[in-house]
Amino acid sequence: MRDLPRTAIIGAGISGLTSGKMLTDYGVPYTCFESSDRVGGNWAFGNPNGHSSAYRSLHIDTSKHQLSFRDFPMPSDYPDFPHHTQIKQYLDDYTDAFGLRENIEFGNGVTRARRLDGGGWELSTQRGETRRVDLLVVANGHHWDPRWPDFPGEFAGDEIHSHSYIDPRTPLDFAGKRILVVGLGNSAADIAVELSSKALDTTVTISTRSSAWIVPKYFAGKPADKYYHTSPYIPFSWQRKFTQIMQPMTAGRPEDYGLPTPNHKFFEAHPTQSVELPLRLGSGDVTAKGNIERLDGHTAHFVDGTSAEFDVIIYATGYNITFPFFDPDVISAPDNHIDLYKRIFYPGIDDVVFAGFAQSTPTLFPFVECQARVIGAYAVGQYRPPSVPQMRDTIASDQQYFTGHMLHTARHTQQLDHYLYEHNIRTKELPAGRARAAEQGPVRWAGVDATPLQEAR
Amino acid sequence: MRDLPRTAIIGAGISGLTSGKMLTDYGVPYTCFESSDRVGGNWAFGNPNGHSSAYRSLHIDTSKHQLSFRDFPMPSDYPDFPHHTQIKQYLDDYTDAFGLRENIEFGNGVTRARRLDGGGWELSTQRGETRRVDLLVVANGHHWDPRWPDFPGEFAGDEIHSHSYIDPRTPLDFAGKRILVVGLGNSAADIAVELSSKALDTTVTISTRSSAWIVPKYFAGKPADKYYHTSPYIPFSWQRKFTQIMQPMTAGRPEDYGLPTPNHKFFEAHPTQSVELPLRLGSGDVTAKGNIERLDGHTAHFVDGTSAEFDVIIYATGYNITFPFFDPDVISAPDNHIDLYKRIFYPGIDDVVFAGFAQSTPTLFPFVECQARVIGAYAVGQYRPPSVPQMRDTIASDQQYFTGHMLHTARHTQQLDHYLYEHNIRTKELPAGRARAAEQGPVRWAGVDATPLQEAR
Repeated sequence: MRDLPRTAIIGAGISGLTSGKMLTDYGVPYTCFESSDRVGGNWAFGNPNGHSSAYRSLHIDTSKHQLSFRDFPMPSDYPDFPHHTQIKQYLDDYTDAFGLRENIEFGNGVTRARRLDGGGWELSTQRGETRRVDLLVVANGHHWDPRWPDFPGEFAGDEIHSHSYIDPRTPLDFAGKRILVVGLGNSAADIAVELSSKALDTTVTISTRSSAWIVPKYFAGKPADKYYHTSPYIPFSWQRKFTQIMQPMTAGRPEDYGLPTPNHKFFEAHPTQSVELPLRLGSGDVTAKGNIERLDGHTAHFVDGTSAEFDVIIYATGYNITFPFFDPDVISAPDNHIDLYKRIFYPGIDDVVFAGFAQSTPTLFPFVECQARVIGAYAVGQYRPPSVPQMRDTIASDQQYFTGHMLHTARHTQQLDHYLYEHNIRTKELPAGRARAAEQGPVRWAGVDATPLQEAR
Repeated sequence: MRDLPRTAIIGAGISGLTSGKMLTDYGVPYTCFESSDRVGGNWAFGNPNGHSSAYRSLHIDTSKHQLSFRDFPMPSDYPDFPHHTQIKQYLDDYTDAFGLRENIEFGNGVTRARRLDGGGWELSTQRGETRRVDLLVVANGHHWDPRWPDFPGEFAGDEIHSHSYIDPRTPLDFAGKRILVVGLGNSAADIAVELSSKALDTTVTISTRSSAWIVPKYFAGKPADKYYHTSPYIPFSWQRKFTQIMQPMTAGRPEDYGLPTPNHKFFEAHPTQSVELPLRLGSGDVTAKGNIERLDGHTAHFVDGTSAEFDVIIYATGYNITFPFFDPDVISAPDNHIDLYKRIFYPGIDDVVFAGFAQSTPTLFPFVECQARVIGAYAVGQYRPPSVPQMRDTIASDQQYFTGHMLHTARHTQQLDHYLYEHNIRTKELPAGRARAAEQGPVRWAGVDATPLQEAR
């Protein structure tokens, strides 16, 4: 039995990279299995593994001030809202600064992860190899498997998901087209704005089921998220209330721009960050509609009884949480729902941890870094999660705390506030986990033989 | 001698149309000479007379609530910020609603206006005809003759003025180009935003001499100009002060986005209305520079000592006030400066009036309508301007009142606040002019023979 678990990380996106960095800090031996030839995952525009949803014009919706990893600040010459190429460069720089590249096996993603009877995992990889590890870090991301809605009827035109949208000429030439964008998240807003350019001679309609509150990227000349900092010392519900009162001061009500009335208050669903969409709506360049009732040939019928003809539908309807390497009977996320203690631990299976499976407000970057700290401490026995029943209790109460006030849709299963999460981890969870480890001893690893099993090849 | 002057209007844009409408209301016989085959002037996109500066994506920067003529509200189904095609339609509807079209001679612009010795004007027109009229309404607009800056050195790439900018493919294919936009007015901002689209693979730099304060189109969900209403009952300087204090609340300081520090306080120059430019600057898609020091081949040297290479320069540097039909020794506007009483009357020449020669905040539309009321009353003898010395005194004090706090550049020679102007005309100037007319009698017209002079053909 070894002290340190032989560890595998699945994926070299932001979650895998920060996990690798923390494991390196703690001296834990690990291999990161990456299906692509590069790091960055979602932020590697045009990623040959198909797992990037970035479009050519994508800028991150969080300002660099909030975005930076705490131990690797973004370059001072970066703009407030960096372009995806700059995020990719930043992740490459992070990878090299901490020597992470040497532990990454590129082009060798995990295709199957089978839990061994005595604990530990047997991994099958892209190259047809098999590896055994003690601890598995699942960091394969949750923004790559497109979620498609299912409307009654058939559409006769082109249908794509925002995942494959690149620019106004790719994957289709959108010029001159009658375009329907379904959804009202950030991607939907960005795509509707980009395609409604008068230079393209298009007509653009945006259809939304829940509608959304639009928040600006700038407020009073500063990135708006500079003002966003939830305090752990004031009840979360009060802070939501305050924001609900203040919101119309910044961006008004969705109805001001012709959007349907949201089926939720501000902060009860993830808001949409867009400077330009309100202007395009207010300029008549984008038309807003409620949900689609049914499709028929080139016609979309909307719930308000109106209908219109379209050439293309772009579904900006989000992503599924998918673990293609797990036996779904063992671990899966039906309707994007997976119960994880602190969004990391799967109750009952000690030797798997998850990184990055949350919709963290304002951003995922420092959140995954915070999770990586827990994962590092866990791997070296400085942290132990509580018992399975206690984990289940806390999962339920955390879920209520973070998402109880939110719409119960597949989009909001893993919503949380980073500031409150990070404060809880730093001031409560890590000390408590350290005390549990001291008292009960750390979790013990199976100590599997990590050399490739020749017979399994 | 006739009671009513035979009147000619030069131009069928917004100033000519409103003047024609008011002359019709007062029963004054008139002919409107229009060089194009259509009404709308600047708002007739692609106007064959070359006098439209509209680009394909142009939406008006003033919301329809402020924009409507007072006697012809915009259709309720118009968006907050109508597209130029909608403005054109509105002007066509206005023309037809008041039967103005029958008085317009299309394709027959005035090429020369010669003042007759005994008063009145002899007009030469495009078709080679000559007409004599008693009263001339100059409404040829001031957004059609491009003003070009004169930087030392020569530029080896393409140079165009924003006047001829149409869209990212017209008049040049801007894709892949290194573009320098000179200026920071509304056109400069719109063009820089449009051309910095990542889909075009361009680099865009914006160079500004004075910098500018950026104001949003929306504030708290309402068109920002709904909040703009200068009061005639509070000193103008106090209101400016208040706005100067409040401004950072709405859009911050230009430096927040990397723009140079303005050489003026907020409200001391016409602000730039752009929702998108701050975002593009903050996203690194547009780079801001100060003034150009000199040009050399493909290189622009800036006053901060930096330089960069460009393929195209777009000069969004405004327009000259030009009267191509007047003998410049009689009437002209050197450096865009022309002293007009209430921006209408030319001291010493009774039988000419000007319509639309102001940079009215927030918009020109109700302003030209207000001027047209004065012109109509003047034509029928219900208004008389004061003596020439009194006019000159008032011109000087009005200029100080409206522009004394502003930068003394060619851009700000004719700036005024519409609310204060309109309140003065309605409550002071029209009653005072009526009293003067009653006391001294109306201005008397030459009573020229308005039939075409055969010998002049």
